[in-house]
Order: sequence, then structure tokens, then C-alpha cells
Amino acid sequence: MKCQANRKPSPTENRELRTANCEPLTAMRLAIYPGSFDPITYGHLDVIHRACRLFDELIVAVALNDQKHTSCLFTIDERIAILQEACEGVAKVRIAKLNGLLVSFARSCGAKAIVRGLRAVSDFEFEFQMALMNRKMEPDIETIFLMPKEEYTYLSSRIVKEIARLGGNVEAFVPPCAVKALAKKLSEKA
Amino acid sequence: MKCQANRKPSPTENRELRTANCEPLTAMRLAIYPGSFDPITYGHLDVIHRACRLFDELIVAVALNDQKHTSCLFTIDERIAILQEACEGVAKVRIAKLNGLLVSFARSCGAKAIVRGLRAVSDFEFEFQMALMNRKMEPDIETIFLMPKEEYTYLSSRIVKEIARLGGNVEAFVPPCAVKALAKKLSEKA
Amino acid sequence: MKCQANRKPSPTENRELRTANCEPLTAMRLAIYPGSFDPITYGHLDVIHRACRLFDELIVAVALNDQKHTSCLFTIDERIAILQEACEGVAKVRIAKLNGLLVSFARSCGAKAIVRGLRAVSDFEFEFQMALMNRKMEPDIETIFLMPKEEYTYLSSRIVKEIARLGGNVEAFVPPCAVKALAKKLSEKA
Amino acid sequence: MKCQANRKPSPTENRELRTANCEPLTAMRLAIYPGSFDPITYGHLDVIHRACRLFDELIVAVALNDQKHTSCLFTIDERIAILQEACEGVAKVRIAKLNGLLVSFARSCGAKAIVRGLRAVSDFEFEFQMALMNRKMEPDIETIFLMPKEEYTYLSSRIVKEIARLGGNVEAFVPPCAVKALAKKLSEKA
Amino acid sequence: MKCQANRKPSPTENRELRTANCEPLTAMRLAIYPGSFDPITYGHLDVIHRACRLFDELIVAVALNDQKHTSCLFTIDERIAILQEACEGVAKVRIAKLNGLLVSFARSCGAKAIVRGLRAVSDFEFEFQMALMNRKMEPDIETIFLMPKEEYTYLSSRIVKEIARLGGNVEAFVPPCAVKALAKKLSEKA
Amino acid sequence: MKCQANRKPSPTENRELRTANCEPLTAMRLAIYPGSFDPITYGHLDVIHRACRLFDELIVAVALNDQKHTSCLFTIDERIAILQEACEGVAKVRIAKLNGLLVSFARSCGAKAIVRGLRAVSDFEFEFQMALMNRKMEPDIETIFLMPKEEYTYLSSRIVKEIARLGGNVEAFVPPCAVKALAKKLSEKA
Repeated sequence: MKCQANRKPSPTENRELRTANCEPLTAMRLAIYPGSFDPITYGHLDVIHRACRLFDELIVAVALNDQKHTSCLFTIDERIAILQEACEGVAKVRIAKLNGLLVSFARSCGAKAIVRGLRAVSDFEFEFQMALMNRKMEPDIETIFLMPKEEYTYLSSRIVKEIARLGGNVEAFVPPCAVKALAKKLSEKA
Repeated sequence: MKCQANRKPSPTENRELRTANCEPLTAMRLAIYPGSFDPITYGHLDVIHRACRLFDELIVAVALNDQKHTSCLFTIDERIAILQEACEGVAKVRIAKLNGLLVSFARSCGAKAIVRGLRAVSDFEFEFQMALMNRKMEPDIETIFLMPKEEYTYLSSRIVKEIARLGGNVEAFVPPCAVKALAKKLSEKA
Repeated sequence: MKCQANRKPSPTENRELRTANCEPLTAMRLAIYPGSFDPITYGHLDVIHRACRLFDELIVAVALNDQKHTSCLFTIDERIAILQEACEGVAKVRIAKLNGLLVSFARSCGAKAIVRGLRAVSDFEFEFQMALMNRKMEPDIETIFLMPKEEYTYLSSRIVKEIARLGGNVEAFVPPCAVKALAKKLSEKA
Repeated sequence: MKCQANRKPSPTENRELRTANCEPLTAMRLAIYPGSFDPITYGHLDVIHRACRLFDELIVAVALNDQKHTSCLFTIDERIAILQEACEGVAKVRIAKLNGLLVSFARSCGAKAIVRGLRAVSDFEFEFQMALMNRKMEPDIETIFLMPKEEYTYLSSRIVKEIARLGGNVEAFVPPCAVKALAKKLSEKA
Repeated sequence: MKCQANRKPSPTENRELRTANCEPLTAMRLAIYPGSFDPITYGHLDVIHRACRLFDELIVAVALNDQKHTSCLFTIDERIAILQEACEGVAKVRIAKLNGLLVSFARSCGAKAIVRGLRAVSDFEFEFQMALMNRKMEPDIETIFLMPKEEYTYLSSRIVKEIARLGGNVEAFVPPCAVKALAKKLSEKA
Repeated sequence: MKCQANRKPSPTENRELRTANCEPLTAMRLAIYPGSFDPITYGHLDVIHRACRLFDELIVAVALNDQKHTSCLFTIDERIAILQEACEGVAKVRIAKLNGLLVSFARSCGAKAIVRGLRAVSDFEFEFQMALMNRKMEPDIETIFLMPKEEYTYLSSRIVKEIARLGGNVEAFVPPCAVKALAKKLSEKA
């Protein structure tokens, strides 16, 4: 099938479109992917890869603590270290600490968008709530939702920690550096 | 708050980021917003505006018929005419006819993304289903979900047509050209 | 549109209504319970009883056709007849034909509220959508949701008709007059 | 348990109440709107206004603690004080402390209904659960669900507190007295 | 971990358990897997395989028409033929025509259970509704829900037919015999 | 209706089916029903009875602590004691302590299935998540979902404890031994 535009573009439009193709157009597109990443899972990594295909740069913003995970297993520095190792090969990604309001951080970075992965229905509601509150506070930053690979649809850091705590193998759920970090942390706690 | 990257970028990375800023980077970002638009509502228009802030060009692709709306009130040409009038002032938008598989169309256009508005839970499931099927067929095209303004969260073409059919005023729900088109069409049918 | 009561009020009722209208407090509270009732189920009846405890009068408004049930099994007159027999003993209830916009009807009746039963999640979304549209058109009429008895949570006219069509016993789901009407109608169709 | 009104009724009110109680129709309709209100949001206020249009009196019952919010930011007396200031202009409303079972409280007040605002799907399930349990314990008290204005659909006290804690502006979400109380409380905690 | 029973079984119990182990126990366990299978997908096949591990025999019951799919693309004989080819290698499976009430059919077969695959939320509600109605009519037959492989979670016959109709490749979604049947049927229709 | 197999079974198949009928077929079918049972409710008991009709033996596995109920009201020994009394009359049931990974326990017992009761939508998501994680770790053990009686659909241990704590009567929700245990425990705590 051919892509046919239905409306004949006016000469002005044509010029504009041509311009668009050969100029820096809009400034570099920057997006924020916020979370607690306690620790990063393959689901998070999948969203990171997808976001990188849509944006010029992605800042993975690690929340000091957020409203869902009142107490993290890993310190923020540990979570960042695991993320950095996991994202080693991923171009365009930077890791940052997020210790204030997400929208203030996004604005200070010049981000155009906040990226969120959608997993399931309960997620959906919570994510909508957050996105609408953020929009109220900062109408110019758009929240976009990406769908992780279906095998990661039901994956969460919480459940991975629970499985690790009970002695289960979590290699299918988190990258090797997170597997190691979980083993170390849990043996310290025991 | 200042935006602080936590990981000191290596010299190579720095170069790469600089390059990114002053070069044509990636080709122009093109997205597809598919639907039946029978007729366009303010909810659709809101999604169009949001998508235009994220992409360099947006093709609104009007489906000949789709699996949800087996029989449209308006012909495809009428739906396109209404859309064109409604999108008059919106730069970056082109309207196109979609008479085959969405992913084939997207590929032929060189689109990087399919844009969908998320309204409510039942939507969410259907949209996920479509998005996963599309990904199976065309893994390189990402479906992204945007959240319309909350006052449009529960708006749908179907309910607007029902209200118009029963003599209700739909000016709060669809743009003026759609109001007029609905009145004309329904008076013809009566 | 005029609000037409289907059942001729008895003299006693008339007196009571007059009293209600010209006495203090707030005017008599009137609510509308709209639906297609094709046919009425025990779930509908349960909602009717609950609504009657909250309001001074309840108008059960039978839609000529609505956006969910494009083709009814029973004619509107048959549906009204079944409803009237089923509501025989229920004081405060009047049955009316609804052949226009619900909110116009409600306003013409002086109703303060639209009553809806909430069954399950998909319902919830649809009902919210309708309620918000109605509120946009008529902000002074409140939609209130009641919860049917849990054993009726999953009951619907559609599924009852399907069971009856396949020869199943529907006595547990609809009142005797509806059982009889279903048997008659289906034998006519066969 | 005794039903304790928090606001001393004025002589006029007393007269009105007496009238209501000894006049025809049905007795004065009284409803309870329970919650933790930690603090009250514009979403709560919206539900209060809607309920007041349906009932003759509304008791806003502030739970000492409930099963969702194990630890409140504000003491019950602070929460009541904020509520009273926020409801200043709203006729028909009384604020009360709820320190036992909701249905026992409702019965002791002579309430006909419990009012709940429905926000989103997860709410819906929890609210249904509570409503069915309450009905099992007190079949004569009906739970009715109202739909807040759509812009408040995703608003919650929890998220407002989180935003305030991170230094965000919450004036769009809670009334001025709650904004002030949040600022004071959080500066004390810091 | 060792499997430890916490309660010391009484001598009677021990005998009973021993008996259970070496006797024909209960009669052969037979389950019904009903549907329209228009046509069978890999999601259906996955559920069939899972059910076969739990039951001694599985009857796949093809509905003449059901309440969700008012008009099938394939005739019932075509659907059965496709199913038979797709289930060729699957022991324990029989294919049957279902032209009445599911529970009557199940009872006449001596089935202990009805098997259903759960895909997503909207499914969940519909399936619950059906299961509760069936239980009302036949309390002795249990409906059990199985979870298909996550990659089939969002797969449906309806969407497969839509993709095929638009010229898409459906080999990832349905077995080869269904691919062939779809191509033939759609070319006849064109 | 008669149960008619559509495909004439081949002689080999016939032999196989006959064999199935008169031999120990598959080993005894054992299922696990895991939970925290803090305390057991009538909803749990209902699932236990249903599971017993499908399996030869059911192990009710009481989790030391799980990811949903971080702190139980009753000790694990108390919860087991209540369960044992509640299941007194139920043949086929054994109670066991679960202090590791569910799938490891299931494998060590030789269980073919994990049984879960499905209550409502939020449950559904959580249960799916758990079931998919368990399947990843142990593909040979199937999770099956049963639907409790509709009057138990919204029942949970958490809400029962809350009602008991506030002085409510919980006899409609939990068996007598749990009523007694709750009263004792709460009086100790007071």
C-alpha cells in the first residue's frame, strides 16, 4: 500500500515540509523515564529501549523514594549503580537522581515528555492519576505510555524481590547485575 | 531543581551527544493517528494537538471501516472533509485514507510510531490487543498512548451520534463543522 | 417532550402527590430509572426497590431503543406491559416511554436524579461515559449509582434471552411475567 | 454510639429540623459521607455539594483511622478543623467524628444512605467490597455512588500530600485552608 | 523444600488417602471447552493443551452461534474441520457440536468442569457472568479458568479475521490449517 | 441434549479411552491452595470445597508471610489451627506450612496445579502476575482459577479484621472458630 495524503498540500506547506526534512527542526527531543528501579527489571529495560527509538535522549530518573514504594530494598546509589551497568550498551541514556517533584525536574532538563510503561489495569489507573496531576502542574510536558513486550506485562520489581527473598531464581526477570545485587543484599540481610 | 546527570559521560559519549544536537540526527519523525473519525470529536482533536508537539509530522489515517465501527454514519469522504476542516489551523497534520492494514500503511509512510488516545479501561484492553498484534506484524513501529484532556476522557463518536440522533446539542463535544455535518446527515436520514 | 405517566394515578396518589408538591422541605424528590428492560430482570427489580427507598417517586423510563441494544426482542409496548406487571406491588413507581434524550425527559419531569445500577467493570465505564455526557447537557440532574444485590451483579437481559432461546430455565433470573413473555415470544419466533 | 454533630446547629436550623421530622412524606433524608479526609480535596467538596442536592442533611463522618490510610498526616481534630473551614458556606452539612463501625454510626444517626464518590476502577472494586459488607451488616442503609466532576476523577489526598511534600503547588487540588495546613504541617515535619 | 502436612492424619484418614492412591478413585474426569472457534487460534490451542494436563478427556464444544459472535465467518462444519486438523496430535481431545445450552450439554456428557481461557479484563467480566449463570442452572459443574501463554493474552479470532481480511499475515496467530481456510474463505468472498 | 462426539474415534482411540476408564490413569491429582488465611473466610472455604470436587487431594498451604499481607494478625500456628477446625469435615484436605517459594513447594509435593479464587478485578491482575511468574519458574504446574460463590466475591480477610476491630459482627463472613479467634485476639490487643 502506498501512503497517500488526501489533502493536496499548498505550496507553502510543501516548502515547510521540505524545510522540516533538512533542518534541525525542533531542538533535540529529550524524555524522562522516572521510577524507583528497585531494582531495574527486563520490563524497565524494554521500555528504555523503546523510548530510545522515539527520542534523542532519555534520562532515567531514579526517585529517592516515591509514593508507591515507601521503603526501597536498595539505596538510591545502589539502584543507580545497577541501572548504569544494565544500560551500559544503550546509547542516548543518562541516569539521574530525582529528589523533588518530577515535573520540576523535567522542566529544568528541558524535557518534552515523561515516558511510562503500562503493564496492567491497576497500573493504568495509577499512571493516569499521576499523569493528570503532572499535566495540571506542567501542561507543556506530555506523558506518553509505552507498552512493554507482552512477556514483561506482569513483571514488577516488587514480585522479583519477593521471589529472590524466598530463594527463587530471578534470572529470567532482571539483568545479571541486578541478580548479583539481589543475592548480595539478601545475604547481608539474612 | 537542576537536572543533574549522575553518570559522567565519557568523551565518546560527549561527542555523540554534541553531534546529536547539531545534525539532522534521525530522519524527520512521522507518526500515524488512525481511526474511523465518524465524526471527529474534541477528544480526537486534543490527541492530534498533543501528538503534534511530539512529532514532526502527523498523518491522521481514516479507516475505510474498522473492526469496532462496522457501519459508519458518514462516508469516508465525508469523514475526511470534516477532519480537514477541523484540522485547518493545525500545522504538521495531513489526512489520509487508510484502506488496508495499518502497519503496512505505516511502513509505506516511513512512520516511526502509531499514536492512540487512551480513554478508559475497556479502551485500554482493546488498544493493547491492537498494539500487540501490530507489533507482532511490524516490530519496528512503536504504538504510543496519549492521554486526552480529562474532560474528553469519556467522549466517543458513538455517543455523540446517539445524542445528535435524539435531538441533543453536541456543540460541547465536536467541532462546528461536525455539528453541521451531523445535523445535515440526520435530517437527510429522517 | 412531556413526561407521560403510563399508569393512571389513583385518587389517593393524586392527593399525596399534590401534598408533596406544595409542602415544605424540598419539593418531592423524583428520580428516573432509564433502560431498555428487554425484559426486566430481578436485577432491575432490585434496583427499583432500592431507589424507592431513597426517592418519593421513581419513573422507570423505557427507551424506544438505545445505543447498547440496537434491536430489542420485545416491542416497547410489550416491555412496558411486562414491567407494569412486575412492578405491580411496588408503590411510588410509574412506567413511562422514553423516546428522546434522557436528560430532556428528566428535565420535563422535574427529576432531580437519574438512577443506574452498577454491575461490573465494563458497565462502570459505559455508565460513567453516559453520566458525564448527561451532566454536560443538564448539570442540575445528578446520576446516582446503586449496587444491586450481589447475586444479581452479573445478571443481564441479554444473557437471559440467550438462555431462554437455548431452552434454559430463566425463572431464577426474571419475574414470572417475563418468563411467560419470553416463552411466548420465542415460540412465535420458532 | 451516639451521633455527634460537630457544628452547633443555629436556632433556625433547629426549627427546620423539627419541622422536617414531624411533617409528612418521608422523614428528613439524612446521608453520611464517610472518609479520612486527610486532608479534604476539591474532589471531596464536589461530592459534598452533589450529595447536598439529593439529601436534606449530610453528615461528613471523619474516620479516626481507616483500612486504607493506616497513618494519617493530620490528627483527626486537624482534619475536622480543615473540613469545617472548607464547608463553611455549604448548608445542610455537619461534620462528625467516626470512631466505630460506619453502619452502627449511620444507624444511630438515622441515616438512610451512605454516600461515596467513585473515582476510578480500583476505587470501584474497593467501594463495592465495603458497600456489600456494610449491606450485610445493615440491610436498610443504602450505599449510593456519585461521580465527581471529571477533572477530579483522578484526585486523591494521598497524591496531594506527596506533591506538597516534594514542594509542589497544590492550590488546584485542595481548598485554601488545606493548602495552608499542608504547608504548616510539612514545615513542622522538616 | 519438603512437602510437610501439618496436621497428623487420623488412622481413618490415612486409610482413605491410601485408598485414593490405588483405586479408580473418581470416574474419569471430563471437561468441556466451549467456544465458537471462528477459527481456532494458537491461544485456544494453548488452553486445550493446558486443560489436557488436568483432565482425562476434553470435549471441545463448537457453538452453533453464541451471544458474542452473532455471525461467524465459517460454517460450523468448517470450524469443526479446522479444529480437528489443528488438534490432530492432541490426545484426549474430542470435538463436538454444541447446539443447545452449554450446561445441558455438559450434564449429558457427564462433565465435571467447563474450561475457559482468561485473556483480559473485559473477558474476565463476561466470563464471570457466563460462569455464574451456568452455575445457577447447574451447580454441580464447575467453571475453571486457565491462563493462556502471555503472548496469546491479547489474541482473538475476531482480530485475526480482521487482519486476514486486510491482507495481513496471520501465521503467527493461527495454525496452518486455519491460515489456509481463511485465505480460501476470503478469496471466495472477494 | 445428547453428548455427541463429532469425530468418529479411531479404533486406537477407542482402546485408549477405554483404558482410561478402567485404569489408575494418571497418578492421583494433587493441587495446592496457597494463601495467608489470616483468618480463613467463608470465601476461602467455598474455594476449598470447589477444588476438592476437581482434585483427589488439596493441600491448603499457609504462607509464613506473603507479599500482600506484610503483617498478619494471627501467628502462622494460630492460622493453621483455625483452618484445621474450619476444614474438619472436608475430606481430601491437608493443611501445610509454606515457608519458601510456592512453586518449589508444589514441585516437592508432586502437585499438578495451584488453585486460586478470583474475586474482582484488582485481584485478577495480581493473580495473573503471580501465576505468570510461577509458570516462568515451573512451567509444568498449572494455575487454575475458581470463582467463589457470588456472595463471597467481595469478601476478604482484611476487611473482616477491620470490621471485627471496630466491634462489628463477622459471623456472616468467617466460620465460628475464626469468629472466636478474632474476638480473643482483639481482646488481648485492646
